[in-house]
Amino acid sequence: MNCSSKMRNSLHSQWKTLISKYSWCAGGSMFLYLRQIQTIAVPFFFSEVAHTLHRVMATAGQVIKCKAAIAWEPNKPMVIEEIEVAPPQAHEIRIKIVATGVCHTDLYHLFEGNNKEGFPAVLGHEGAGIVESVGPGVTKFKPGDKVIPLFISQCGQCKFCKSPKTNLCERSWSNERYDVMSDIDSRFTCRGKKVLQFMGTSTFSEYTVLNEIAVAKIHDSAPLDKVCLLGCGIPTGYGAAVNTAKVEPGSTCAVFGLGAVGLAAVMGCKAAGAARIIAVDVNKDKFEKAKVFGATDFVNPKEHSKPISQVLAEMTNGGVDFSLECVGNVEVMRSALESCVKGWGVSVLVGWTDMHDFSARPIQLIAGRTWKGTLFGGFKSKDGVPKLVNEYLARKLKLDEFVTHTMTLDRVNDAVELMKHGKCIRTVLNVSRQ
Amino acid sequence: MNCSSKMRNSLHSQWKTLISKYSWCAGGSMFLYLRQIQTIAVPFFFSEVAHTLHRVMATAGQVIKCKAAIAWEPNKPMVIEEIEVAPPQAHEIRIKIVATGVCHTDLYHLFEGNNKEGFPAVLGHEGAGIVESVGPGVTKFKPGDKVIPLFISQCGQCKFCKSPKTNLCERSWSNERYDVMSDIDSRFTCRGKKVLQFMGTSTFSEYTVLNEIAVAKIHDSAPLDKVCLLGCGIPTGYGAAVNTAKVEPGSTCAVFGLGAVGLAAVMGCKAAGAARIIAVDVNKDKFEKAKVFGATDFVNPKEHSKPISQVLAEMTNGGVDFSLECVGNVEVMRSALESCVKGWGVSVLVGWTDMHDFSARPIQLIAGRTWKGTLFGGFKSKDGVPKLVNEYLARKLKLDEFVTHTMTLDRVNDAVELMKHGKCIRTVLNVSRQ
Repeated sequence: MNCSSKMRNSLHSQWKTLISKYSWCAGGSMFLYLRQIQTIAVPFFFSEVAHTLHRVMATAGQVIKCKAAIAWEPNKPMVIEEIEVAPPQAHEIRIKIVATGVCHTDLYHLFEGNNKEGFPAVLGHEGAGIVESVGPGVTKFKPGDKVIPLFISQCGQCKFCKSPKTNLCERSWSNERYDVMSDIDSRFTCRGKKVLQFMGTSTFSEYTVLNEIAVAKIHDSAPLDKVCLLGCGIPTGYGAAVNTAKVEPGSTCAVFGLGAVGLAAVMGCKAAGAARIIAVDVNKDKFEKAKVFGATDFVNPKEHSKPISQVLAEMTNGGVDFSLECVGNVEVMRSALESCVKGWGVSVLVGWTDMHDFSARPIQLIAGRTWKGTLFGGFKSKDGVPKLVNEYLARKLKLDEFVTHTMTLDRVNDAVELMKHGKCIRTVLNVSRQ
Repeated sequence: MNCSSKMRNSLHSQWKTLISKYSWCAGGSMFLYLRQIQTIAVPFFFSEVAHTLHRVMATAGQVIKCKAAIAWEPNKPMVIEEIEVAPPQAHEIRIKIVATGVCHTDLYHLFEGNNKEGFPAVLGHEGAGIVESVGPGVTKFKPGDKVIPLFISQCGQCKFCKSPKTNLCERSWSNERYDVMSDIDSRFTCRGKKVLQFMGTSTFSEYTVLNEIAVAKIHDSAPLDKVCLLGCGIPTGYGAAVNTAKVEPGSTCAVFGLGAVGLAAVMGCKAAGAARIIAVDVNKDKFEKAKVFGATDFVNPKEHSKPISQVLAEMTNGGVDFSLECVGNVEVMRSALESCVKGWGVSVLVGWTDMHDFSARPIQLIAGRTWKGTLFGGFKSKDGVPKLVNEYLARKLKLDEFVTHTMTLDRVNDAVELMKHGKCIRTVLNVSRQ
């Protein structure tokens, strides 16, 4: 295939993408709408495609200079800087990030974690974008593909990838230096300094580079400013319920913490057929949203003098069948375990923290409770994310309802502040023009 | 049915018992052996039966005065005293205890626990005996039946009994006052004082009274001085492996602590088909015995300067699939969890302690490990114990190999001292003449 036929194919593929995207938006009036698009949008569309491809062609193999939010040191706001992004090496993919969510783990790394070595870094790990170029040996991705960077890879070859029991991967960045929460083998430099790739992804940058084992190719019609949330928070909470806790139909569940992860856990409990979903948060403003995702009962620990486990035990004749801790606080982890019914209660750690031990009395487990944890909701990342995208496109999974704020990358520190003060569910940052 | 026909039936039943017992012993030569017994043993047998029944008839409905070891207060040796044992009330059974094991939980209550309210009490909870008399409403037990008292009941009616997920029972003594580790509604008095029934059983007494929901009727031919061990330690360790951890064929396991419970866990891992069973103990004298039960590797933490979890990780390419903590020490619980492979490792708390919290870093669970606990190895007690007795009789389960010492009840404090200093696996006390 020569270069011009490649370009023709690529144009054709992008045209199909546009058609399928708009047809999806238009719902019932699809056919009429398609005709209108054909008539009105084609000239504009082709000029856009040509522009995009020109840029692709211009940057492939080159160092890209672009904007990124750099976390130079802990406890300081990020700074928007121009960085250099090296071309992808063998089996790597350079991605233009279009949109990214801001997740509590970004905030944790910047303000809460006690490791000072993980800096400077480009934070962000919940993004979606478009392949800009691929390194040698990459055959399953091509420029223009819509993708989601994955903070857990799926090499498909290691003992973890081959086991149905786990979504870990031996080749994940975290196997090298999980303590710094970043890939130390990064493609970023800024002001002459190497900059780490937070969680192996770094989506607070216009461009980033990942190994192909950590990139999910998704449906061409997926709106990147929504499906970016499938890079972390939503699969984490949703999967914690359906994959890790394995919530059962008719069961009673409690979800502690109603951020995006907690709300996704509520949605997972509902999808699994839970009869009763108790939403627990000290911020009662979150309850209305929790109802949207399926919560049936609402408990604000501030309104009770008794331990919350006792409140839930009284509400449920002894405790809930499943509890999900979506805060990342070791005291809440304890409460969530103690809120489970003895005999068979299952409690799952979903929220992230690594500063303190979690603990309980041995009788809690000896009496039949199970304590588990989840990373990315137990989804094998490359297999799972495209399926979740399809579920969203088929309206089986909510995403839009999580997005409370939309901003540009420049306002990343404002987004962090919103999250710090519990003023948002998810802020989506528009990073690059699509 | 009048009294003499009742007696005839009872004689007939006891005769059948003797036949079945001896036929079991004789194995292949059963028929020949039976004839010999019929010729030689019948006159002796009938005089024994008459003697037994005379005693049964003489005590039924009466307060029995008998010997028991009383724990008057914590941190003091037990005292052999004459106690009064009231007749069984509705749905209760009075049992002549023939033999009892001495378990670490007895020692824990006496010397280690920090609850001072659970005294005076008759300790012992791993016994076997013969029904002396039954209270009103008891239809499934009769005097002369061989039985094992159960520290977890199985009423068959509650939500726990009806669930296949747990062996708890809502009607268990522990629901009332588990903090004192005893049934506060006891049938014992001594020197005018009420004496508590430790773990609802109190097998360090010639007679004890239990509700029928907490008594397992076992095979007539079971040797009580061996099957008494099925009252606690052996099902606990064995079931922790086969029921709670659900050890898989070909897996790698680690058992921490090689007392009777730990050795039973080793036996459970082997029965479940584990390919490799790593026995861990600071007392290397236990390793020889562990080999008898199926251990393949032996690790003495005292011989390593590295954390034991690291030693095991290096031995197993990342950690074991299943670990069982059979010590009752919260630091060992942590090591056992950390020794599991990430992704799917399962660690089970088997040893008992309630003085301290167990703890770990959240990443241990978030990386895919599961922390569970077991009580009585997950066996539903009334259903499970008779089956385990039958497995022992069919030589599918080892019991004799656990018994390192045999004494009379009078020497109960010596048995406790042996255990305190790790000098025994199990001491069996002969309590009453059979």
